Amino acid sequence: MSMSRVTCHMSISLDGFVAGPDQSVDNPIGVGGLRLHKWHFEPLHEVDIPVRDNLLAPKGAYVMGRNMFGPIRGAWSDDWRGWWGDEPPYHAPVFVLTHHAHDPIEMDGGTTFHFVTDGFEAAMEQAKAVAGDAEVDIAGGASTVRQALSVGAIDELMLDIVPVLLGSGERLFDGVGDLALEPVEVVDSPHATHVRYRIT
Amino acid sequence: MSMSRVTCHMSISLDGFVAGPDQSVDNPIGVGGLRLHKWHFEPLHEVDIPVRDNLLAPKGAYVMGRNMFGPIRGAWSDDWRGWWGDEPPYHAPVFVLTHHAHDPIEMDGGTTFHFVTDGFEAAMEQAKAVAGDAEVDIAGGASTVRQALSVGAIDELMLDIVPVLLGSGERLFDGVGDLALEPVEVVDSPHATHVRYRIT
Repeated sequence: MSMSRVTCHMSISLDGFVAGPDQSVDNPIGVGGLRLHKWHFEPLHEVDIPVRDNLLAPKGAYVMGRNMFGPIRGAWSDDWRGWWGDEPPYHAPVFVLTHHAHDPIEMDGGTTFHFVTDGFEAAMEQAKAVAGDAEVDIAGGASTVRQALSVGAIDELMLDIVPVLLGSGERLFDGVGDLALEPVEVVDSPHATHVRYRIT
Repeated sequence: MSMSRVTCHMSISLDGFVAGPDQSVDNPIGVGGLRLHKWHFEPLHEVDIPVRDNLLAPKGAYVMGRNMFGPIRGAWSDDWRGWWGDEPPYHAPVFVLTHHAHDPIEMDGGTTFHFVTDGFEAAMEQAKAVAGDAEVDIAGGASTVRQALSVGAIDELMLDIVPVLLGSGERLFDGVGDLALEPVEVVDSPHATHVRYRIT
């Protein structure tokens, strides 16, 4: 049995949104969504640096929703290779949930996208199998994180609580049910309050 | 011109609710709402003690919505004196927003409830006039805080971010528009992450 810890790291507005409204191919994180991520743009506050480093540290494997991998509506074109250019920041196998079968796509820098058509649990199993004792990270988007939370799949949730109000968009916790969350580490900069929650 | 700083202190669930669903006379903070306040029940964690002390420290005056003072539906009975017994925890003048004129009610321990029928701004003016240089605190409930936030009336918002998910209820930030929030102090216990925001 795999010992993989399952983690997830999301930046969330103070009013609970992880993406702004009107998500599109041109703006996949929605109107205002970029404001959630400014804490890890240069120049970083010294408090935010280790949090960013942890965000970017390679995990054993990732599970990713189809909306995180490609444009929201319709199937991807045959040459769609994700939003991230030739060298995505994952450097590990990424299991993408989709209804469309697709051969794996090997990218530069150690990232390979695998496409899983038989659901979240199957993707988790495959991710844990390749991760071994390393972490499996739920890379997003919000609906995949909600699914993972609602089935109790996440052991540790890191939230960057960003002091902005988006007013509308996609909420992280809608419909996930109750969870036993315990804050185990808090660090704060003017740009975000980073809280690591253990989910038991 | 008054120099009163305007403060507000709310306990909020990780999914953004400051009261649970199904608020009633028997349960004015809604189903599950009490879980938001456990951080200041005995025995307190040492980190939570000064936050509780600050919550209870007398302010110069308070502004309070009608749902915070009395049952949500209908006018209060003539002998309604609030939820708090003979000695409410305010120890200062409290300006209650209502559509029903009422003589002031003087309670034990320095709390006097004044009833303001001409709106939020009028209540703020009266509160600032009696507070002098001391703080005016927006005591709640959520709709009054939203109103105060939406007109830019609050200088400092203290949030106790409690690691529970209520799933439904009353949200603090719905419809308040955008605000420039700056976290200026964070302390955390296992029961809550307390963030003091300056609103500029």
